Amino acid sequence: MGSTAESRSSKRNTSEADRPIGVFDSGIGGLTAVRELRRVLPAEDIIYLGDTARVPYGTKSEETIKRFAEQDVDFLRRFDIKLIVVACNTVSSVAIEHLRAKYRDLPILGVLEPGVEEACRTAESGRIGVIGTIATIESRRHVREIKKRGDFQVLCRPCPLFVPLAEEGLVTGQIPELVAHMYLDELRGKVDSLILGCTHYPLLTETISRVMGPGVKLINVSHEVARKAREYLGEKGFLREKGRGNLRVYLTDIPPHYEELIYRFLGEKPESVEKVELEF
Amino acid sequence: MGSTAESRSSKRNTSEADRPIGVFDSGIGGLTAVRELRRVLPAEDIIYLGDTARVPYGTKSEETIKRFAEQDVDFLRRFDIKLIVVACNTVSSVAIEHLRAKYRDLPILGVLEPGVEEACRTAESGRIGVIGTIATIESRRHVREIKKRGDFQVLCRPCPLFVPLAEEGLVTGQIPELVAHMYLDELRGKVDSLILGCTHYPLLTETISRVMGPGVKLINVSHEVARKAREYLGEKGFLREKGRGNLRVYLTDIPPHYEELIYRFLGEKPESVEKVELEF
Repeated sequence: MGSTAESRSSKRNTSEADRPIGVFDSGIGGLTAVRELRRVLPAEDIIYLGDTARVPYGTKSEETIKRFAEQDVDFLRRFDIKLIVVACNTVSSVAIEHLRAKYRDLPILGVLEPGVEEACRTAESGRIGVIGTIATIESRRHVREIKKRGDFQVLCRPCPLFVPLAEEGLVTGQIPELVAHMYLDELRGKVDSLILGCTHYPLLTETISRVMGPGVKLINVSHEVARKAREYLGEKGFLREKGRGNLRVYLTDIPPHYEELIYRFLGEKPESVEKVELEF
Repeated sequence: MGSTAESRSSKRNTSEADRPIGVFDSGIGGLTAVRELRRVLPAEDIIYLGDTARVPYGTKSEETIKRFAEQDVDFLRRFDIKLIVVACNTVSSVAIEHLRAKYRDLPILGVLEPGVEEACRTAESGRIGVIGTIATIESRRHVREIKKRGDFQVLCRPCPLFVPLAEEGLVTGQIPELVAHMYLDELRGKVDSLILGCTHYPLLTETISRVMGPGVKLINVSHEVARKAREYLGEKGFLREKGRGNLRVYLTDIPPHYEELIYRFLGEKPESVEKVELEF
């Protein structure tokens, strides 16, 4: 599909194709989605906004999350983007319909649906687990989206300590393993696939996988959303074809040790990192 | 001193005394300071602001912390307060001089100095430990304040996972104990007193104490700042004498399960909890 789309793109809409993709997250964790986008769409220019001044979103109320998400989109729209990727699972869960209703002209892709699709495709006996922040899990949005797609059994669990563990780089060993047991023992043996519904969780893949056992497929939503973005751009003829795209990172706060943090999630050094103030 | 101050107060400045005390923190943790204030100054009206929409501050940059702290003070000033208590250790460490320079007419008391004073008073062999957020420890402000007071040896350690552990209510047992060992083993046997330089840490007292051993005095800065507030108000003749003061809580976000969270830190139910928007 990629090549058909690319040829369509070059014929039909080169200027559209040259516009950047906008990606945002509550903080730096969303760079795991950028990493996947860079892998599957290497020619695309990417503008990333991390709202590090107000991170995390996942412990906050729906009303506040919606307000912050709007401000994030308003910032990215200045760059004449062709697509928004909401790399934040919390926003994808509680605010994406709100954003789509407000910005009707703008294609907005969240991490929730691509993850759900993959889980439904691979859950052989129909039992799916979902882990995420408190706001993500309490939104029940995953459950609704999964049930729409068939007669699945869904087990959900918020895992709030996984985020600070990942940010501390404490991803393997006794402490994360005990924390993983505390959260996941109730899901063990009861699901075939587990949606890692938070951008930080892929860093804990090894530990989560050991606790869940070898038969459980872990779904990295960053990977799924990148696949979905390529599919969407291909269908529209908006794929960029050649060269290596730029990555510009904007943060609302430049936290201590930000370079190390960025590298941990992104796996490369971006072209530029700039501080920006949103309208607050 | 209390009674002298009180009689002065009633003679000299009843209207001053009737003004409320303003307290702020990055989130709900600062209610541990309010709990102590309510204990030692039961007649005082208290206005509390928790910036829950942007919590935590401790992982953010000095510049951003200063900007947020100014907005917090601007909000509290609307209530004609007689004293500001900065219940946030991060703000007390990186922004208090900035605030004092900007708001010269306003007495501002932070949690850092009272904690340092108590540590210096009780450190028998002159060895003091300090734990706090990354921003607090990297500010080196405790070290400077302690060295001003004498020839002490100071050992510092950021303990970022203590905050999410306390917020999850995971304060005793194997997981917090392992985390405490990870952070504190390098301080064990090397300090006589340990400043708990973060409002969340008193919730982990039992675990921290077990790891540090019985000879180490743990300093609860919320307790020290309340003592200091009473001292200051007494000296000025601003102490309120009678009745039970009101406590009004303002939050920039009403997070899920906020009532439970508030109770965990405050130990009582406040008169009112309202959502407020700062100028952002």
